[in-house]
Amino acid sequence: MDILQMLDFVGVAVFAATGALAASRKQLDIIGFVFLASLTGIGGGTVRDLILGQTPVFWIANSAYLAVCVAVAVLLYFTAPLFEYRYRLLLWLDAAGLAAYCAMGAAKGLAAGAPPLAAVVTGVMTATFGGILRDVVSGEASVLLRREIYVTAALAGASLHVALTLAGAGTALAAAIAVAAAFAVRGGALRFGWALPGYRHLPGRPAGKALPAEGATARTSARDAADRRDLR
Amino acid sequence: MDILQMLDFVGVAVFAATGALAASRKQLDIIGFVFLASLTGIGGGTVRDLILGQTPVFWIANSAYLAVCVAVAVLLYFTAPLFEYRYRLLLWLDAAGLAAYCAMGAAKGLAAGAPPLAAVVTGVMTATFGGILRDVVSGEASVLLRREIYVTAALAGASLHVALTLAGAGTALAAAIAVAAAFAVRGGALRFGWALPGYRHLPGRPAGKALPAEGATARTSARDAADRRDLR
Amino acid sequence: MDILQMLDFVGVAVFAATGALAASRKQLDIIGFVFLASLTGIGGGTVRDLILGQTPVFWIANSAYLAVCVAVAVLLYFTAPLFEYRYRLLLWLDAAGLAAYCAMGAAKGLAAGAPPLAAVVTGVMTATFGGILRDVVSGEASVLLRREIYVTAALAGASLHVALTLAGAGTALAAAIAVAAAFAVRGGALRFGWALPGYRHLPGRPAGKALPAEGATARTSARDAADRRDLR
Repeated sequence: MDILQMLDFVGVAVFAATGALAASRKQLDIIGFVFLASLTGIGGGTVRDLILGQTPVFWIANSAYLAVCVAVAVLLYFTAPLFEYRYRLLLWLDAAGLAAYCAMGAAKGLAAGAPPLAAVVTGVMTATFGGILRDVVSGEASVLLRREIYVTAALAGASLHVALTLAGAGTALAAAIAVAAAFAVRGGALRFGWALPGYRHLPGRPAGKALPAEGATARTSARDAADRRDLR
Repeated sequence: MDILQMLDFVGVAVFAATGALAASRKQLDIIGFVFLASLTGIGGGTVRDLILGQTPVFWIANSAYLAVCVAVAVLLYFTAPLFEYRYRLLLWLDAAGLAAYCAMGAAKGLAAGAPPLAAVVTGVMTATFGGILRDVVSGEASVLLRREIYVTAALAGASLHVALTLAGAGTALAAAIAVAAAFAVRGGALRFGWALPGYRHLPGRPAGKALPAEGATARTSARDAADRRDLR
Repeated sequence: MDILQMLDFVGVAVFAATGALAASRKQLDIIGFVFLASLTGIGGGTVRDLILGQTPVFWIANSAYLAVCVAVAVLLYFTAPLFEYRYRLLLWLDAAGLAAYCAMGAAKGLAAGAPPLAAVVTGVMTATFGGILRDVVSGEASVLLRREIYVTAALAGASLHVALTLAGAGTALAAAIAVAAAFAVRGGALRFGWALPGYRHLPGRPAGKALPAEGATARTSARDAADRRDLR
């Protein structure tokens, strides 16, 4: 098993775990756990394969991917109550999946003959679409709308992988550096709240009118409150 | 017309009807009815075909599928006010579509050469993705998050179809049994509130803190309230 | 560059702008702008290409599409505060994208050998799916659920393009007329509130019970309130 296939299984497993944790937050039954775990685990790679025209998609031929999703879901159905901070765990596992998949997706894009910019995009898509599907289907606020760095970490990893590969680095080295960088960036965001400057309204614009009007502020506060609850 | 093609048209028609009923709940115009009916009617099968690599997808070559969606949408635009319990009707039609499509999707997966586990997954996907698209686009709470059995019914039907086919049963017999089983399971859930045990928090965990924190409880109550309203 | 390719770039650019404006409403960082702009800009065409089986999809081979999305996103990150009525601008750009893409999508469907009805559907899908993805991922109320005409404009443009082409008109002429018609219809809806008659409940049904029960009314009022805020 080479490094790319290893990253693929790591990505599937940890994203599946985030899907199962989302299911636990909605108090679904065990089949709901399996469903959300599979959707999240194989979702990003499925969209990537579709867009590159590589069908049937990766989990059709090799049932090991689905078996991993089922096993992770069943395991978490019974063990999730042991974790006190499930949403935090979900976010860290999501960070690991993001890191594994942004390199893996970029590598698959390059292997399929996509030009560099498109390969970066397939990397970012692979890393983010499983989580988007999870959040949309489970009715959670999208992780993409959080203020701290998210897509940026996937973009950094995918860009690094493509740049290093173009510069002549082997796939294993490029992937290892890209995964480490993406995880470091996203981990820093989770741990220290790293954020790029968010878009700000025109300073001259009356704040009393413009800011509450956007809805983002209220939403963010609600999210923060939800996070604090989740940390219990 | 063999049994699989018949199931396909039944699935398209009843899912299209659920899309039209969702449009009626949002008081859309007639084109909105046609749009949501088509999206729901052909959505699940479209995702299935994409994943199996069978493109152009099924409704491109045969316009009869789209014609069915349009006809159902127009019919319901004028007749929906006659039904007093539209959300309940939507759920029962959704159950019929789920039953037809879990067998049909699994059969198509097997026919495309997918291994058994992957064929089960294509069956479940075909049966559930039309409804997911309908709920996401129309802004309804996802039917997947309901407490009573849903995905489990599709899984039972798809697994039965694959197991019976592997055991040597003809496609028609396997599909008939699978459809009946899936509809019985989902119907029992709708009629008698059948549910698998939902995930429960650790008993030792202070309920006052953990339970309201998850959001699922409040959401469920809101859904129950909405259901009661809908039954009027 | 022929007219279809021009329409393609116009569609990508204006839809990308609507994605960037949605990002500004959520106060995302610059990478969030690029992400939402790209998702919205290339989303509709990606779904169209997948369904027609034309993979790898259009933006893989030609990186110019992605470059346009990135440029538009960066530009709007710095200039959006200059626009006072951003949601209104978003809606008008969305109308331009809708007009460009309904003709372009229908033309691509016909070119791929789809029958007339399916070509109309690929036109409508191309025109609407970018906006659906934008609204779902950014957590906005779907533009499809607005009371004034939306899908109808895309349907009019796509149908006109297919009908004129079948009647022997050249692609450029058919596309020009279709784009103008779709933009006129959607523009009229935005400017004058044009709407088809919405579905209405049975007159005999007690309004006090049925109307508030549907949720659409409350939702619509909230949306109207949001619009009024946005117009400031």
